Amino acid sequence: MYKAPLKELRFAIHQLIGDERLVGLSDLPDYSTEFADAVLDEAARFAEGVLDPINRIGDRTGAKWTAEGVRMPAEFKAAYAKFVEGGWTQLRAEAEFGGQGAPTLLGTAVEELWASSNLAFKLCPMLTQGAVEAINQCGSQAQKEKYLPKMISGEWTGTMNLTEPQAGSDLAAIRTRAVKEGDHYRLYGQKIFITYGDHDYTSNIIHMVLGRVEGAPAGVRGISLFIVPKVLVNDDGSLGKPNDVRCVSIEHKLGIHGSPTCVLSYGDKEGAVAYLVGEENRGLEYMFIMMNAARLSVGLEGYALAERAYQQALEYSRTRVQGKPKTKNVPDGSKVPPIAYHPDVKRMLLTQKAYTDAARAVALYAAMQLDLGKHLPDGDEKAKAQARGELLIPIVKGWSTELGVSMASLGVQVHGGMGFIEETGAAQILRDSRIAPIYEGTTGIQAGDLVGRKVGRDNGAAMNALIADMQAELEKISSSDAGVAASKAAALEGVAALKDATAAVLKDPEGALAVCVPYLMLGGVVVGGWLTAKAHELAVRQASTDPDFFAAKQQISRFYAANLLPEAQTLSRVVKQGAASILDADPAKL
Amino acid sequence: MYKAPLKELRFAIHQLIGDERLVGLSDLPDYSTEFADAVLDEAARFAEGVLDPINRIGDRTGAKWTAEGVRMPAEFKAAYAKFVEGGWTQLRAEAEFGGQGAPTLLGTAVEELWASSNLAFKLCPMLTQGAVEAINQCGSQAQKEKYLPKMISGEWTGTMNLTEPQAGSDLAAIRTRAVKEGDHYRLYGQKIFITYGDHDYTSNIIHMVLGRVEGAPAGVRGISLFIVPKVLVNDDGSLGKPNDVRCVSIEHKLGIHGSPTCVLSYGDKEGAVAYLVGEENRGLEYMFIMMNAARLSVGLEGYALAERAYQQALEYSRTRVQGKPKTKNVPDGSKVPPIAYHPDVKRMLLTQKAYTDAARAVALYAAMQLDLGKHLPDGDEKAKAQARGELLIPIVKGWSTELGVSMASLGVQVHGGMGFIEETGAAQILRDSRIAPIYEGTTGIQAGDLVGRKVGRDNGAAMNALIADMQAELEKISSSDAGVAASKAAALEGVAALKDATAAVLKDPEGALAVCVPYLMLGGVVVGGWLTAKAHELAVRQASTDPDFFAAKQQISRFYAANLLPEAQTLSRVVKQGAASILDADPAKL
Repeated sequence: MYKAPLKELRFAIHQLIGDERLVGLSDLPDYSTEFADAVLDEAARFAEGVLDPINRIGDRTGAKWTAEGVRMPAEFKAAYAKFVEGGWTQLRAEAEFGGQGAPTLLGTAVEELWASSNLAFKLCPMLTQGAVEAINQCGSQAQKEKYLPKMISGEWTGTMNLTEPQAGSDLAAIRTRAVKEGDHYRLYGQKIFITYGDHDYTSNIIHMVLGRVEGAPAGVRGISLFIVPKVLVNDDGSLGKPNDVRCVSIEHKLGIHGSPTCVLSYGDKEGAVAYLVGEENRGLEYMFIMMNAARLSVGLEGYALAERAYQQALEYSRTRVQGKPKTKNVPDGSKVPPIAYHPDVKRMLLTQKAYTDAARAVALYAAMQLDLGKHLPDGDEKAKAQARGELLIPIVKGWSTELGVSMASLGVQVHGGMGFIEETGAAQILRDSRIAPIYEGTTGIQAGDLVGRKVGRDNGAAMNALIADMQAELEKISSSDAGVAASKAAALEGVAALKDATAAVLKDPEGALAVCVPYLMLGGVVVGGWLTAKAHELAVRQASTDPDFFAAKQQISRFYAANLLPEAQTLSRVVKQGAASILDADPAKL
Repeated sequence: MYKAPLKELRFAIHQLIGDERLVGLSDLPDYSTEFADAVLDEAARFAEGVLDPINRIGDRTGAKWTAEGVRMPAEFKAAYAKFVEGGWTQLRAEAEFGGQGAPTLLGTAVEELWASSNLAFKLCPMLTQGAVEAINQCGSQAQKEKYLPKMISGEWTGTMNLTEPQAGSDLAAIRTRAVKEGDHYRLYGQKIFITYGDHDYTSNIIHMVLGRVEGAPAGVRGISLFIVPKVLVNDDGSLGKPNDVRCVSIEHKLGIHGSPTCVLSYGDKEGAVAYLVGEENRGLEYMFIMMNAARLSVGLEGYALAERAYQQALEYSRTRVQGKPKTKNVPDGSKVPPIAYHPDVKRMLLTQKAYTDAARAVALYAAMQLDLGKHLPDGDEKAKAQARGELLIPIVKGWSTELGVSMASLGVQVHGGMGFIEETGAAQILRDSRIAPIYEGTTGIQAGDLVGRKVGRDNGAAMNALIADMQAELEKISSSDAGVAASKAAALEGVAALKDATAAVLKDPEGALAVCVPYLMLGGVVVGGWLTAKAHELAVRQASTDPDFFAAKQQISRFYAANLLPEAQTLSRVVKQGAASILDADPAKL
């Protein structure tokens, strides 16, 4: 039922974002636009043929806890084996240890397909990738050689262990205790909300665990990062004894039932054998390496589910007949047209599609900036790209995942009563989508990161540079097409609103924390509006090469300008005037 | 855990809406403000003590289908018996047949408590009430005497049977067939989505069924309304043979698991015995009598669930500690204050509370208008109140239920990861809330009704009268308090935006159908803003009578003005400029 939006992705990557800048970079010898297309074609086949058909099974059957470990649905286990066989675990990993070294841009495009077709499945490789990244950047050569080849090949998976009952968003409160014992440590503590913390896909799981070495300073400066294999690994690479870690239970969740969320108990017996990554007390810094990558990947889940919800709503509304629409532009003939022609249903479909395309464009643009920041030769451009990528990560994570929920909810609405019935599948998308604004840092945490670390710390330099670039690019658009002109004007008005709001945030950092979420949303709407206007101009210019596709693009851009971008004015105003009524309020008196 | 917001309700009914206008009306001999308070106190006890404790059981256990009929959780069955014993089924019904004849205003206030504490339970009496209303207004004296006393006493329940697989929002497509046979008809057809279509609370269920008499005109002008008892009723009132109606299955739904949603099959054998209500082919008109009452009652479900979500989020955020808030206005002392003091969490809580209070005020105001329209002596005031009540019904239904979903979602967000775990209960509120924008007419249907029947048909008279009254009342507010002045200014700006948008809707009726939902939302935000500004002024004036309560009211009003009312500008702009990009779009090319 799900169809990978390949045309959209190709348009976004090649034309809107311009991946030709990556071609020929010495770090990316294998990258070409043809390579990207071939990978996307294969990924589409896998998502449509293997992952989508079992998405519902994951929801219905779910992961099961047993005393011997978590048991996954057989269909998921089989799909994981095929995923490994297809080499998909290797796509973004370093070539040195068996990876294909694909850029983040392509990785982001591909991961959308996994997330749309089967979010619960997608989380396992996502977390392994984060663990690989951390070991690769912060581990010793011996650790890399021991763990990376098998994690990259997919023979083993990886996890991230941050949360404890008293330590969620506040990692300073972590209590898991590490006691030094020769060349390793013994770990004691309980971790919760560990995604794929146990499963039966593979013979081993490499847990990346935050803990506190005995005697370490209090707070975040006393946190260290450890490798804790589920099964100990001998020096020859063979598996040894089981480690002292156990999945005590799994959570009964609103959605992503096909993804086990584990409570892991470390050190119930002799203490779990743990290997320090890098230096003691630098765990938070290392963890952020994993986090940044994971935040982009979770961010894409928002529009990936919005895309799935849109496709399902579009299909339903094109077949369901329910009263004659009182409107122009309905097909001729005696037959009553389907509900997609009812103006309000059309409005809902356009809203889903316009937000999805805009959020995808913003995420791919952010990914491209991270690639340029990593792979360009040293210099101003590289630094600017890196800063811009980091600036955009909280916006992608926060805006796109909140949109994911509201667009999935709109998908239910298009179905009417059928949307509330679980068999239809629309409700599952809503349930699954609800986790994305929470994990890897809630929307509030993202927004705090945005106004604090990303905008406040450099006194708005990265944000104002982006604003200036957007403004300059928009002003250069010159088209005789009235639609393009309207998109340009709406986007420029949005950019001005973002500029005002940014000044307000810089002027009042404490107030900014109260209105950081509206500010983040404003960033998303406006950066999305800029890219949507650019897409509009491209669509008009190339209309003849694919008339239907580019006609739809123009419709979407026009809708975004007239119906979605006006929100920027409200958000900007709220950022400028809303803080005092929040700061002054006393929650004890509510 | 749930606490009925009695202070809020008393403030709203007595001060903000002013129920003294109902006291002394000849139709309402028993009504007094003391009576209302006593009823609310009793209802609060029932909601908190009986309904809230079994809310989770309804979700977990749910209604069960068996070949012998639907079996309800034992706790629900016991609660229904207590509900009947307490006389709650009688509250709003006509005195002539055993009812207490309470006004809609009080009924709406009481039903909020049922909906907040246990939405799945609340639906059964709500539907019975709709059936009672229809029989009372459209049935014969003999029908009234036969059915109403037992339905009003709660000995029997009632249902509304509209939907068929091909006929959801479009009732013209109804196919259920009625064949005349002496003094009754034989009914054949299948009805779906029948709430409490079967259960084991009572010995009989009175189904109100839309069908088509053989030879009737096509479309909505050929629909008739029938009484179809589950068990036939003898002339002496005793129960006779089972009728030919059967619950074939119940739905597996996203939420309200404690409320059976039935597929009912009529006439599998000899045809179900059905009694015509009123005249043939006037069924739609009669059904709208039920619908209007039900739409107000479903509308209140939105803010009722928002209230529940708010209470739970507030409680969690006042106890959960997670990092030190970087902000002023935190309690002194060495202990880290709970997350309610984090500015973004406070923003979420204020958003929930401000929208909940505003939506409640709008619903109670609408209910009051319906009461005045019904009970005032004939004249202009009566007619104006009636028109205003009807104008507001789609706004209450559409705006409040959409808010219910978004505020329940925000409640999940305040809980962070715990919100996604079903044990917490926040997720159930979100799941339950999702039905309200759908049943009794989707938000799109409400918005179409608003711009068509309610604003278009009288050329904006009722809406413009409301706008003029709001403006005049706001202009009269004179207070030295800066907060009140800001609320007044923000509300007046909102009213102006609604006035502009109303002119646009009247000028372009076809375009209005494309932007009817933003127009409806605008109506909610602005009418809510007017009442919130009024509440602000009252709160300042009476601050000394209950300092904490009225301080909170002022905080909430201030927040609404600065953070929520600005949305009116965006919505008004979208109403004015958004239609063309929707009407021109071709869903076949998306």
